[in-house]
Amino acid sequence: MSPGRPATSTSALFKAAAGGDRRALARLLSVVERGGSESRELSGLTFERAGSAYAIGFTGAPGSGKSTLAGALLTEVRRRLRCPVAVLAVDPSSPVTGGAILGDRVRMQHHALDDDVFIRSMATRGHFGGLAAAVPEAVRLLDATGWPLVLVETVGVGQVEVEVAATCDTVVVVVNPGWGDAVQANKAGLLEIADVLVINKADRPGVQETARDLRLMLQLSGTLEWTPPILKTVASAGEGVAELFDAIASHRAHLQAGGELESRRAERALSEALRIAKGRLERALDATVNSPANAALLTALQDNRLDPGQAAGRLVEQVAGDLAGGGALS
Amino acid sequence: MSPGRPATSTSALFKAAAGGDRRALARLLSVVERGGSESRELSGLTFERAGSAYAIGFTGAPGSGKSTLAGALLTEVRRRLRCPVAVLAVDPSSPVTGGAILGDRVRMQHHALDDDVFIRSMATRGHFGGLAAAVPEAVRLLDATGWPLVLVETVGVGQVEVEVAATCDTVVVVVNPGWGDAVQANKAGLLEIADVLVINKADRPGVQETARDLRLMLQLSGTLEWTPPILKTVASAGEGVAELFDAIASHRAHLQAGGELESRRAERALSEALRIAKGRLERALDATVNSPANAALLTALQDNRLDPGQAAGRLVEQVAGDLAGGGALS
Repeated sequence: MSPGRPATSTSALFKAAAGGDRRALARLLSVVERGGSESRELSGLTFERAGSAYAIGFTGAPGSGKSTLAGALLTEVRRRLRCPVAVLAVDPSSPVTGGAILGDRVRMQHHALDDDVFIRSMATRGHFGGLAAAVPEAVRLLDATGWPLVLVETVGVGQVEVEVAATCDTVVVVVNPGWGDAVQANKAGLLEIADVLVINKADRPGVQETARDLRLMLQLSGTLEWTPPILKTVASAGEGVAELFDAIASHRAHLQAGGELESRRAERALSEALRIAKGRLERALDATVNSPANAALLTALQDNRLDPGQAAGRLVEQVAGDLAGGGALS
Repeated sequence: MSPGRPATSTSALFKAAAGGDRRALARLLSVVERGGSESRELSGLTFERAGSAYAIGFTGAPGSGKSTLAGALLTEVRRRLRCPVAVLAVDPSSPVTGGAILGDRVRMQHHALDDDVFIRSMATRGHFGGLAAAVPEAVRLLDATGWPLVLVETVGVGQVEVEVAATCDTVVVVVNPGWGDAVQANKAGLLEIADVLVINKADRPGVQETARDLRLMLQLSGTLEWTPPILKTVASAGEGVAELFDAIASHRAHLQAGGELESRRAERALSEALRIAKGRLERALDATVNSPANAALLTALQDNRLDPGQAAGRLVEQVAGDLAGGGALS
């Protein structure tokens, strides 16, 4: 136990969280957000128990109604499956939230008294490999502590959000009616990762055009084993939400029947490992650059006495030395 | 000398290029594009001789007329300064060009017989640290071989293009009249790096609105030591190009008078070194992952017998070992 940390061990917190203690679970999610050695200890604990939860990702432009739709789906899931559901709202643009609930999370407030619903915001810069590595770890933690279904909602549609959504088993991409929205979604790389497409706010004009655009772009991307269905919803009125539930269930059944769930997860495990490794290497490089021992090297570089390639070579050597010694990893 | 490479040493090519041999220069730019050990040898040669060239970056959305504007500026520079000018057209979306001239480079064709103009396309995926590290190296090479002024033109406005443009001394951001273009430029991070703003195709409607948008966005970004002037050009007719020349000259004088040129270059040298170091670490990680020795590790990861964090730890250890041994660096 390092000094200054609360005097509860990670494994004790894990035991409590698995027994239903929500505050322990929230603290462990903060551990995942922070990253570092505690988080690695936690990974070891969760990994053995995880593997059965199913993650559904929601992504789409801000204002498309993702939160409302995820909230409506949450209600539908609770009504039809009765299993516990966790919601992670992921916002890369925020600093670490420390567990604070985002403003628009109030839309899910009517679940606040439901013991089988757990809602939490996540944002982190500290984690090795960033959010795209932290989110799967958080999903494993939820999995291992009794949450078999996790909804992951991203706030924006940047590269990080796309990567985060792509770590989920079923990815729901939300667009709105109107010229251009489908094209924007395509440009942002959303259609590539979409398993289910939703045109939300479908009571507005332009639904047919958007649906046609989406179909065309899906056709352009070639024959797929799974053709993402295009659904129309008015999330604020609950319209089309039952169909969304069914579409996600169909996709899940498709993945399981074809053995694709396993192969997708295997692929994702590899990208996750690479992302974590890359994050650790970058962190080690940062530590090396900021080490007082390198002040002279940096001065020589900035005074034009050393070329950037040479300086890079020396930094890389030091990173290798530090990593071999285990220094920069903790 | 590795087998399969032309039997001319890098230093002999460098000597020839410094003596005015354009084919030798073109081959050395290919060396920079490819990266690797030859490129590092070249860095050592160019670094000592470089430091006096001035780089001007052009960036903006495709279709904004950047190429035409850069071509018009080239003509103006040749008329007024009479110094040799090199042009690098940077296209991250292309595979390595091997020196081929991009289609729209034909717009600069009337300089083809001018011995004091050198035009070259650049694209690379192979270079450690990518284009944002390769371009400054190419600029140093041009500098060391007698090209005191380098125009760098990016093709698109992605993250890489913004990074490439930011490595230049004066950054010219090109937008068009019309609602939204200025906002898009701001979103893409272009206004942050702009030293000179150009509304090209200023014979079209909406110029005043775009100028107002740009001014507003500049004001929002706070007080700056240098306020980017907002120019209006019709590059295809040569209108406003003399003013662009003057604005760039003013910016250069401002940087030199305040000592900012040195401090900016020092800052860029540091980011360049970090970028190269990061690129080498990533390359080493790739080599480790693809090493046959790690097949069992990857299988264990994909079969769910090893968690991604543990797998990452082992990969990082191996990278450190390989780098310490110098294996993955060559």
